[in-house]
Formats: sequence, structure tokens, C-alpha cells
Amino acid sequence: MNKTITLAMGNGGVENAELIQKVIYRHLANDFLAKAEDATPLRFVNEPCFTTDSFTVTPLFFNGGDIGKLAVAGVCNDLAMMGAKPKFLSLSFIIEEGFGLREFEKIMRSIKKELAINGAKVVTGDTKVVPKGGCDGIYINMSAIGERIACVSQTNIEEGSVLLLSGDMARHGASIFAAREGIELANEIESDCKSLWPVIDELLQELTPKAMRDATRGGVAAVLNEWAAATQLCMEIEERFCNVDASVQGICEILGFEPFMLANEGTFVIAVHPDDAQKALQILRRHNAQASIIGKVSTTYPRRVVLHSAWGTRRFLDMPSGEILPRIC
Amino acid sequence: MNKTITLAMGNGGVENAELIQKVIYRHLANDFLAKAEDATPLRFVNEPCFTTDSFTVTPLFFNGGDIGKLAVAGVCNDLAMMGAKPKFLSLSFIIEEGFGLREFEKIMRSIKKELAINGAKVVTGDTKVVPKGGCDGIYINMSAIGERIACVSQTNIEEGSVLLLSGDMARHGASIFAAREGIELANEIESDCKSLWPVIDELLQELTPKAMRDATRGGVAAVLNEWAAATQLCMEIEERFCNVDASVQGICEILGFEPFMLANEGTFVIAVHPDDAQKALQILRRHNAQASIIGKVSTTYPRRVVLHSAWGTRRFLDMPSGEILPRIC
Repeated sequence: MNKTITLAMGNGGVENAELIQKVIYRHLANDFLAKAEDATPLRFVNEPCFTTDSFTVTPLFFNGGDIGKLAVAGVCNDLAMMGAKPKFLSLSFIIEEGFGLREFEKIMRSIKKELAINGAKVVTGDTKVVPKGGCDGIYINMSAIGERIACVSQTNIEEGSVLLLSGDMARHGASIFAAREGIELANEIESDCKSLWPVIDELLQELTPKAMRDATRGGVAAVLNEWAAATQLCMEIEERFCNVDASVQGICEILGFEPFMLANEGTFVIAVHPDDAQKALQILRRHNAQASIIGKVSTTYPRRVVLHSAWGTRRFLDMPSGEILPRIC
Repeated sequence: MNKTITLAMGNGGVENAELIQKVIYRHLANDFLAKAEDATPLRFVNEPCFTTDSFTVTPLFFNGGDIGKLAVAGVCNDLAMMGAKPKFLSLSFIIEEGFGLREFEKIMRSIKKELAINGAKVVTGDTKVVPKGGCDGIYINMSAIGERIACVSQTNIEEGSVLLLSGDMARHGASIFAAREGIELANEIESDCKSLWPVIDELLQELTPKAMRDATRGGVAAVLNEWAAATQLCMEIEERFCNVDASVQGICEILGFEPFMLANEGTFVIAVHPDDAQKALQILRRHNAQASIIGKVSTTYPRRVVLHSAWGTRRFLDMPSGEILPRIC
């Protein structure tokens, strides 16, 4: 029988302590958590970077990951994108009364596995249990502090910077959508949900990227538009070099989605000096054969993103708007 | 007309950026947020401490505060209890589609006001919008990093340490319960919801407390039992010195609640060296006339909390268990 989470497990008392000690700490045990105080003292060598993300994805388990993997990867990727090594994480659960302990354990195992990939530790946490209907199964917030290895920032982007994409686009959004709607033809679509620290670590040993950003909510379109707005420059992209898996493309065509606007959870855009472009491509391809150079930064149309087609036509790619796809992360 | 939060405002695109820029940043504007990157670089002089809390309180607005004030006070108090000055906060919202923008603005104003009391800044954030039924109005996660001014820790507690309580007990739990159940007689009960950094700042200038812990979920009973368990010592408490407001006591008697087990949100237990007890009491009383010396640490019953009555009888105070009162924070 699958035991479930009870309201008492969020009471700050005996049952709460048991859930924390017997389930959560069992997966996450470390010296920091063992102290069990209100806050955790930390030490840093390099400049710390801080980020946060809440996760409300549905379904909780999808092809290529689950909410636990997604949470660790998501928050650690935000650090990696700033050139920071993920180190210390907070983990906060909002759990609906009646949620299965077996599913909770499965999520905890994913969290543990993904922490190891990042070399990061959960050092502080919180658990709330809400009555039935108070949330949809389980929501996770993770905040993370990393140490900066390199100063990677959108402020470094300049005219002539070369833009690369680390893999094919829109896998996460398409796989979540397929799972949610029970679309058969697309069952094989696997989310790109993945921790990026391993590839970023290799990159940083060989070069200093100007800027990196993972193309989560709002997809590649949001990243490129944010960079165009922040730099007042033009992002010129060759559409044919932005790879999209055939099944993902199929889903997009049927449903009228733009792959540039669908979420990714392990695919990022990177801007490098032209001299570093080939080296960066080589490293990215070691991790994902779909990585490619997709364009460059120019002054042609300031603050705009331009997509060039293989036939020589061009169009502007706007910032996504409207209800694209809620609860994809 | 009260405009509402839409699903599109959580899309990572145009509407999401508008909510962040026009509503959230308007209240929180600072140099860190202005950079709008994936993670925020920070600087520390003293040892950083890290903590996290999620808030699911109902009702969202209660006598003495709201979810915004509660979130900032709650997470900053966890730092203050470790002798750390609150500095950098993350702010993550999960908002139900259709939530009123007027209510959201009210929460943002509370957050801003409470940040100022702590001298802390929100430096990174996240906003998710879930479809109707996906959460109950709004949930907030805050994580916080502070800088340690003094090494306050439960590991410093020793035999002979004097225990003080910073105010009367159980106000938050009782006020939330009264508000939720529409109990008329108790309408005047005000939550103790409050940022503790101002009183802690004064304390740390005069003495170094051995340990401090705010008596949130599980109340004073949970704090004392946690300390008894962690130190293997006995917490001996004079029940008559633990103040309870008459209305709060009334609610507890009607409903069979134990005031020691109800939540507080601005009341803390502090352990000091006997030589510091009077000075600590004096400082606590400047902020709350109900502050009192409640007992001492002994070896009488290792790992237990003992309550002495005015009539010379004694009983053990156990760790709370069962469904005390969900969603009080």
C-alpha cells in the first residue's frame, strides 16, 4: 500500500520531524543539514551568485524527467549560465494532503541524483502540507547559491559576437504538452531536462563565453529578445541552423506552436567572441550533436531579433506573448 | 474594477515581463534586480547564513499582518535567530489565475515595508501563474542570506543557561484560527507577526545570546523540545511566567488548544548566560512588555521539557503532534 502525506506531517511537531528525518534527510544527508538550525552558515571562496525558482509542472513525471530533476537542474542551470558553479541549495516543498509517499520518495531520489551531477548540496529546507485542493500534488521551490568561476553576463555581448544554440529546440514544452494531452504520435519526445553544469564546466576551462542563458519559459525567442533589449543590438539568426526534432516539429505544426517560443530545460543560447566560436561548438557537440552556430550580433535592426530563412527572406522574431503553455516548469 | 492576474502573466514572455517590471520591480527596485540576469552576484563581509520558507497561510490578510509581511518577517527572523543580519532575499510567487491585482499590490507594499525594517533587499525572484484550482490564491517562497554578527547556536546552550520568552505566546495561531472560523469574541486578537531584527540588533550590541529560536509552527513546545533533544539537557520552565493574553487563553480553552503548541510569528525563546539574563530581559521589555524569564537549563530530566506550576506540581511538555492547525504560515 502506498502511504500518503498527512496534514500532521506539516505541523512543526513530531510527524513533521519524522518526515524530514526519515524521508528527506535520508536522501540528502550532509553536515549542514545535520545541524538542524534556523539558518545554515556557509563559506565561499569566489563571488557568490544567488537565484530562485518555483516548480509547478504537470504532469509531475514526464518523459525525460520529473519535478525533482527539473527543480535541481532548473535552479543550478541559472547559476551555470552566470559562470557560477552550483554549491548550496535550499529545498522547499508545498505538498497536498494525500500525496503518495512512494511518489515523494521517487522525487527525492531524482533530487539526490541531480544534486550529485551538479556537485551541489541542499543545506536548508522547509515543508508545508496543505489540505486537499490547496495545491496540485506537489510544488517545489529551490533557491541556489553558486560560486562564480567566470564573469559571464549579457552586458559582455557586443557587435560581432557569435551566437550558438546548445541543442535542438522546444523538446521540454512539446513533451509536456504531449504527455498532458495524451498525444500518441509524440510519445517518443523526450524532454531536454538536464543539468548543464558538466558542459559549462568544460566550456569555462577552454574559454570565457560572453553570455549564456537557458531558454526556459518563452523559449529561444525570449532569450534573444531579452538580449536584444538589454544590449540595444540586433540578434541575427539563421533559422535553418536552429534544429528542431521531427516529432517536435510535428506537434508544433498540428497545434500552431512556434518552436522558438516553446520551453526548453537543458538547452541554452551562448554568445562568444568570433575567435572562440569553433572551440565552443566543438565542446557543445561533445554533449549534444544538435548544437550549432545559429547567428551573430549586429547593429542592423537595433533591439530586434531577425530570422533569416534558407531562401533569403527574413522576419522579426518577437517576444512571446499570451498563454503559451502554463505549468511547464 | 479590480484587474486580475492572468495565465499569460506567467508565460516568460511579454505579459510576464510587464507584471515583473510594472508591479513587482516598482515596489522592490534596486541595483541587483535592475541587472535582470539568471542569478545575482553578491558580496559578503561576514559569514553568510542561508534559510528558506514557503508561505501558504489562510486567510491571506489577518489581524496584524498578511502573507507578504509574514514571508519577509518569517525568513528574516530565521536569520536573526542565528545572529545574522538579513541582507539578500529571493522572492518566488505561485499565483492562482484570477487573483486580484489590487490584493497583489497590497501584498507587495507589505513586502516592501517589511524589507525596510530588516534593511534587506530582494535580489532575485520568480513568478509562476497556475490555472484556477492550482493553488489557493497566492503562495510565497522566500529564501534569505544574512551576514553573521554573532555566533548564536543551540550548541552553545549549557547547564545553568537562563531561558527567556520575548512576549506572550500563541497570538499568531489564535488570530489565524479566529479569523478563519469567524470567532467573534476573539476578533481583537492580533497576530504577533513581526520582524525581529530590530530587537536582535539591540541585543547583539549588548550581549551574545547562547541560542535563539522563533517559536513558529509547533510553538514554544517545539523549540524547547528541539533544544532538549539537541543538548541532551532538561528545559525547566515556570508555567506562570509564560504569558498568554486573556483572549488567546479563551480561544485555547474553548477549543482545547495548548498555548505552548500554537504558532507565533514574532515571539522567540532565548537562552543566555545567567550573568546576561537581566540585561537581556531589559532589552526584550523595551520591545514587548510581556517578555519574561521563563526558566533555566538543568540536568534533572535529560532530553525533556518540564513545566512547573505555581502550586509546585510539574508535568512534561511534549513535542506537539497531530494536525495542530494547518496553513498558519
